[in-house]
Amino acid sequence: MRIAVLGTGSVGQTLAGRLAELGHEVTVGTRDVAVSLARTETDQRGVAGFGAWSLANPGVGVATLADAARGAELLLNATSGEASLAVLAAAGAENLAGKVLIDIANPLDFSAGFPPTLFVKDDDSLGERIQAAFPQLKVVKSLNTMTASVMARPVEVGEGDHTVFLSGDDAEAKKTVGVLLAELGHTDVIDLGDITTARGTEMLLPLWIRLMQATGTDRFNFKVVR
Amino acid sequence: MRIAVLGTGSVGQTLAGRLAELGHEVTVGTRDVAVSLARTETDQRGVAGFGAWSLANPGVGVATLADAARGAELLLNATSGEASLAVLAAAGAENLAGKVLIDIANPLDFSAGFPPTLFVKDDDSLGERIQAAFPQLKVVKSLNTMTASVMARPVEVGEGDHTVFLSGDDAEAKKTVGVLLAELGHTDVIDLGDITTARGTEMLLPLWIRLMQATGTDRFNFKVVR
Repeated sequence: MRIAVLGTGSVGQTLAGRLAELGHEVTVGTRDVAVSLARTETDQRGVAGFGAWSLANPGVGVATLADAARGAELLLNATSGEASLAVLAAAGAENLAGKVLIDIANPLDFSAGFPPTLFVKDDDSLGERIQAAFPQLKVVKSLNTMTASVMARPVEVGEGDHTVFLSGDDAEAKKTVGVLLAELGHTDVIDLGDITTARGTEMLLPLWIRLMQATGTDRFNFKVVR
Repeated sequence: MRIAVLGTGSVGQTLAGRLAELGHEVTVGTRDVAVSLARTETDQRGVAGFGAWSLANPGVGVATLADAARGAELLLNATSGEASLAVLAAAGAENLAGKVLIDIANPLDFSAGFPPTLFVKDDDSLGERIQAAFPQLKVVKSLNTMTASVMARPVEVGEGDHTVFLSGDDAEAKKTVGVLLAELGHTDVIDLGDITTARGTEMLLPLWIRLMQATGTDRFNFKVVR
C-alpha cells in the first residue's frame, strides 16, 4: 500500500521504518524537505535527526506534505496534537479527500509544563476536530494509547498480549486500519465506535503519563481483560 | 478491621457484603437509616433496594453517616461523585480526622445525558477536592476504574490477572489499602504516586464507558502489560 507518514519525529520515524519493512511504499511528508534532511543531530530524548534517520532508511521516500499526501492511498498523522490541523491543511484538503487517515496524535498541552494537560477533551476530541475540518477524509483514531516502539512492534511487550483501539465513522476505513494493525502484530483490536469515542482514548493519556512516571518505562500497554 | 462504607447503592452493597464475608466489622453509613431501610424494591438496573439487601445481609451494620464514620478505622466513599463532598461533610470532619478513606467515586456528570462527561478533570480531580476539603483525612483513590463486582471479586474476570491503581499522599495509608486490595483478590497493584495522579484514573472513565458500550458488558478490567 502507498502510505504517507506525516511527521518526522519519533513516531513518524518508527512507523515509517516498520511499514517499509513490511513491504509498503512509504513516503514521509514534511513542511520543508531540505530543512528536515539537514537535521542530523540526535535530540535529548534520543530521537535521531531526520536527515540521519533518512540516510539510514533509504527505502523510505521524503516529500513535501502535499506531494506525500497526493501520492498516498492511506495517511498517518504522526505530528504533535497542536500541529495536526495546520499540517493537514498544508497537505491540502484536495489531496486528502476520500483517503483513510490513521490519527495517532494526542491533544497534549505542555504550556504549563509536565505533566501536560489536554487542550481538547471530554465533550470533544482532536480526532473529531480533524474529522470536522476535513469531512472527506476518513479519520480513524488508533495507536495513540502507546509509545511508538510498541505501536510498531507490539510483540516486544508482553508477547503482544495487549489491546489497541479504533474510533471512526467509516466502517470500511476501520477495516483497512485493522488489517494494517494485524500486520504490525496487534492481536486484540477493539472497535469502540464512531469518532466521538476518540474522547475516551485521548483521555487515557493522563494515566499513561503517570504510569510512565511510576514504572520508569514507556514500554507498556493496556490490555482489556474480559 | 472496623470499616464504614458510605453509600447504599450497588458499589456500597457489593463491597460491604464482600468485606463482611472477609471477616471485617462493616457498617454502612447513610443519611437517613429509616428511609434507606424502607427501600425494598429492586431498581431498573437490578440493584436491590437497600432495605431488602440489609435483610439479606444481617452481619452488616447500618448507621447514620456520622455514627458509621465515628466507629470506623477505615472508610470507603461509595457515593456518587456529585454527592461525595456533601456526604463526607455530613459524616463530620471530626469523625474523619486521621482515618483512611478509600475514594471509589468518579466525577461523572450526567446532566447532558449518556455518555456522561466529568465535572472535574485534567488539572484537578475529585480525589484532590476531597483531600483539600478534609486535610486530616488520608485519601487513597482506588478501585474507581472497574465495576463493583470486579472490585469485590477480581478473580471472576480473567482469573484476576489485571491491574488496580492507588493514588494518595500518605504512604502508610496506601499500604493499608494495598493489604485490603490483596484480601479482595487483587494481584497487581500499581502505586501511581500522590493524590494528583487521581486525575489519570478518573479520566479513564470515558474510555471505560465506551468499552462497556462496545463490548456489551461491564465485566472487564484493564491490565497494564509490561
